[in-house]
Amino acid sequence: MILVRPQLGENIGAAARAMLNCGLGDLRLVDPRCRWPDPEAWPSASGAVSVLERARVFPSTAEAVSDLSLIYASTARQRDMTKPTVTPREAAVEMRRAAARGVRVGVLFGPERTGLDNDEVVRAARILHAPLNPDFSSLNLAQAVLLVAYEWRMASECSITPHRLPRPLELPATAGEMENFYEHLEEELERGGFFEVPEKRPTVVRNVRNVFARSQLTRQEVRTLHGIITALAGPRGRRS
Amino acid sequence: MILVRPQLGENIGAAARAMLNCGLGDLRLVDPRCRWPDPEAWPSASGAVSVLERARVFPSTAEAVSDLSLIYASTARQRDMTKPTVTPREAAVEMRRAAARGVRVGVLFGPERTGLDNDEVVRAARILHAPLNPDFSSLNLAQAVLLVAYEWRMASECSITPHRLPRPLELPATAGEMENFYEHLEEELERGGFFEVPEKRPTVVRNVRNVFARSQLTRQEVRTLHGIITALAGPRGRRS
Repeated sequence: MILVRPQLGENIGAAARAMLNCGLGDLRLVDPRCRWPDPEAWPSASGAVSVLERARVFPSTAEAVSDLSLIYASTARQRDMTKPTVTPREAAVEMRRAAARGVRVGVLFGPERTGLDNDEVVRAARILHAPLNPDFSSLNLAQAVLLVAYEWRMASECSITPHRLPRPLELPATAGEMENFYEHLEEELERGGFFEVPEKRPTVVRNVRNVFARSQLTRQEVRTLHGIITALAGPRGRRS
Repeated sequence: MILVRPQLGENIGAAARAMLNCGLGDLRLVDPRCRWPDPEAWPSASGAVSVLERARVFPSTAEAVSDLSLIYASTARQRDMTKPTVTPREAAVEMRRAAARGVRVGVLFGPERTGLDNDEVVRAARILHAPLNPDFSSLNLAQAVLLVAYEWRMASECSITPHRLPRPLELPATAGEMENFYEHLEEELERGGFFEVPEKRPTVVRNVRNVFARSQLTRQEVRTLHGIITALAGPRGRRS
């Protein structure tokens, strides 16, 4: 990530934090308009100190990108320039593909107030433009860095979180255990006069079972629900 | 977007900017720890004044979400709670689908330092967790808001297959309706002597609520469950 003439140390810190959030560490600063190192950067980096300490400062954009082979210019407004424009999501796939071939990739971000100069945009192979609200499209600098870093991270295969229940030792109840629970519940509902219209009973039973089937109850939760029925209706058979 | 006990006006402003960047405007604040309106919010909103001016303040999370039916709890760390975890990308598709059916959707974000309490996470149907660097996963508050708002924007309505339009009773219950149901249940459990060990009551209540929060009950199902409690325990107040 290459920040061109950044104005606020605070934004540099926040960009460093966003980068480390996404597992990135190579931050480059071109001719920063704040002093550097700027103490304002450290609080907003919130622990991403390694990124700030390793940040390199270059006098010009040309020098900052000289070792890179695929360069993107991040812009909020349309540029009158014949150059392919890609979204951060499209760019991420392309960048991953390039990086896997050993290509060094970089993204240029302009100063907070003005964005990149056209001369800087020209250096890039692609314009990177996030398809945001056209009436309010200017992102904060660190937010723009985050979107690109985030898409980079999401484009990796290992970043897919499985749809898992986060307590591995809490096993889901078996169908047999669920059946016991349904029977307990329905027996007590019968006693409580819940099934007023006998013809509707199958539908009602199905709807009630559906509620619990959907939640993928754990064994512990099924025990708790048995306890609830007993607390509400008294122990099994008490009323019979 | 619902910011729970936000500490810094600056972050509220940056969150408002990120929301408007993505075309969102309904910002809710629960018991802000900074004064509100906080002049610190305006510079970081950078023009997203409409969002700040329309932001509503609520004394509690329960009140802030009472009209919503699909609630996500944004967390950076794993919670010891049995509840589906989704990424912002997965959530965005689900949210778009729900919104297309007229379901009101909200995302809870916790205080900067501590994140959401477990009691607040329990209110949500889903845990929202971005698959970032596991060694440095805590996002700045406004950055977290941006990722969710950005994914919402990227999951444009036209990419979602419409489902059959549901009948009104098939719509998910609001958080207010769920709260009524929990209160009815807990009142009867109290009478039935379910809470044997008073110190354990909060944990037990949380686990029981979690079972139902996870299943995204419809209004009809909530009615049925009220009926079940009444059938099991007798009409409200009968035993008192």
